[in-house]
Amino acid sequence: MHNPIALQEIIEKAISQISYPNQPKKLYDPIQYIMNLGGKRIRPILVLMSAELFNDNLTPVIDAALAIETFHNFTLIHDDIMDNAPLRRGEKTVHEIWGTNNAILSGDVMMVEANKHLAKLDSAVLKDALETFNTTAQGVCEGQQLDMEFEQRDDVTIAEYIEMIRLKTAVLLGGAMKLGAQVAGANAQQTELIYQYGESLGIAFQLQDDILDVYGNPEKFGKQVGGDIIANKKTFLMLTALQLISPEEKKEMFKNYATEAEKIKHVTELYNKYKIEELANKEAERYIQIANHSLNSLPVLEERKVELKQLTQQLLNRSY
Amino acid sequence: MHNPIALQEIIEKAISQISYPNQPKKLYDPIQYIMNLGGKRIRPILVLMSAELFNDNLTPVIDAALAIETFHNFTLIHDDIMDNAPLRRGEKTVHEIWGTNNAILSGDVMMVEANKHLAKLDSAVLKDALETFNTTAQGVCEGQQLDMEFEQRDDVTIAEYIEMIRLKTAVLLGGAMKLGAQVAGANAQQTELIYQYGESLGIAFQLQDDILDVYGNPEKFGKQVGGDIIANKKTFLMLTALQLISPEEKKEMFKNYATEAEKIKHVTELYNKYKIEELANKEAERYIQIANHSLNSLPVLEERKVELKQLTQQLLNRSY
Repeated sequence: MHNPIALQEIIEKAISQISYPNQPKKLYDPIQYIMNLGGKRIRPILVLMSAELFNDNLTPVIDAALAIETFHNFTLIHDDIMDNAPLRRGEKTVHEIWGTNNAILSGDVMMVEANKHLAKLDSAVLKDALETFNTTAQGVCEGQQLDMEFEQRDDVTIAEYIEMIRLKTAVLLGGAMKLGAQVAGANAQQTELIYQYGESLGIAFQLQDDILDVYGNPEKFGKQVGGDIIANKKTFLMLTALQLISPEEKKEMFKNYATEAEKIKHVTELYNKYKIEELANKEAERYIQIANHSLNSLPVLEERKVELKQLTQQLLNRSY
Repeated sequence: MHNPIALQEIIEKAISQISYPNQPKKLYDPIQYIMNLGGKRIRPILVLMSAELFNDNLTPVIDAALAIETFHNFTLIHDDIMDNAPLRRGEKTVHEIWGTNNAILSGDVMMVEANKHLAKLDSAVLKDALETFNTTAQGVCEGQQLDMEFEQRDDVTIAEYIEMIRLKTAVLLGGAMKLGAQVAGANAQQTELIYQYGESLGIAFQLQDDILDVYGNPEKFGKQVGGDIIANKKTFLMLTALQLISPEEKKEMFKNYATEAEKIKHVTELYNKYKIEELANKEAERYIQIANHSLNSLPVLEERKVELKQLTQQLLNRSY
């Protein structure tokens, strides 16, 4: 059993050993660039951790981890185009450096690269792995589509929002863990439980992100606190508040503010008045409970679950 | 053995039976739209024809044909964004109707759909099929990248141009035929020969397209005759002419013309003076020879090759 740091090292080493073609340079340089922008490598770590629940031999699982990480980075390139984002992890986005057309095409070829990693898996698990990977990839695309559509809508329900973050974020965590388990030889019941675990964890994780965006410690959060409020983003907090506040407060919420800081302050006060943080935390805890229930139900020796339980505690205890 | 019309009917029926998810509608409507814009279905027909060289049972090959056609249509959506093209087969392009972001994402999920078709193949052939498909997809992306880069360059050589059309167009024809053969149970030597056949045919086909763009019968060609000349496109004809014409003629070629018709007339006269059509035809014939040599070398009963030989003659005798 490896701890997350050891697993991350395995992944970083594997990524550094991927060899992309040299030409056309503008097609492959963006792939090198985004794959080496860093990040916590949570998804491929989860692939490996899930595999280690069932099997000590990680060698055959590396390709699955690389497929997931490559796919994830491909979605970042294309999402950044769609979101018109200038920065990713503090650095220029691919389309900012190479242009939109180039970013589209490099993303496309990255999807092929992800599939190439996957195609290296053993024939005995290949079919199941492809099924998991394709279902996951499709869900992520659907989630991004819903996210874009929600920006244009004023009647998004909380249930729709949860479904959107399930698809956009949580399906990939669940899919990563299911894939790791399948490659490690887990049976269908086991892979289903680990999928449920990952997906529920993913939803809790995203809800926490929504909370941290408002209540996070600016020094530790890494993004601008209040960013979602400024962007009028329909997060779980916003949608819950909209159900509770008075019409006058709603009008007040969306008025023009003199400064961004004033808007953040005012909306946060409204959130406080209606205990939105507490409600959001309760919802996150509900998903953590589902996640823990799935992991506890998994017929695997408790000692094999230790690292995974620690990592998830760590992820979920991100500091405010 | 089926003739191309019968095969096209099989493909149209299979396409009509694909069921995409209903939601999100804006994600899947573009897929329905582009898949039903028509077209000659050359690539999936080639998948099936290639399979019929080796095996009478087409049922297991349909998924491979659908994977190829879905992938091809995905590239059309993304290429049309990159080329800023308003029309595709006489109808509005996907990004014109649904917007660029939506077109990017629908294309992405189409790539997943292509992989889902592929993943249905029998486990015995799956690994080889994935290898062929991924190599093909990667080549097509590289070809599109080179095509975009060549627009910005003034020193493209004829050899570079041939390599670009090989990747952008011919690799997919070769890959389609290799895939069909693999699924039908052909051995490695056979699949390599049929790949060579398809790739060489694809290069010849594109060279013919270059010729038809200048010398085609406007009523039969389907596109504006002279379009490449107006766009200063670096086709085989243009690159060959640039090697032969005098510096004065080159200056004359790129001067400002009063009308597009005048430019087309003048450049065509230059092409005529230097027998560019004949030179291009010779190059196309060279690739047809290579294609025929590959097909003749294929250890398969001659009677099984009849339909394929007829189709390719038909494709290559497109009227001027």
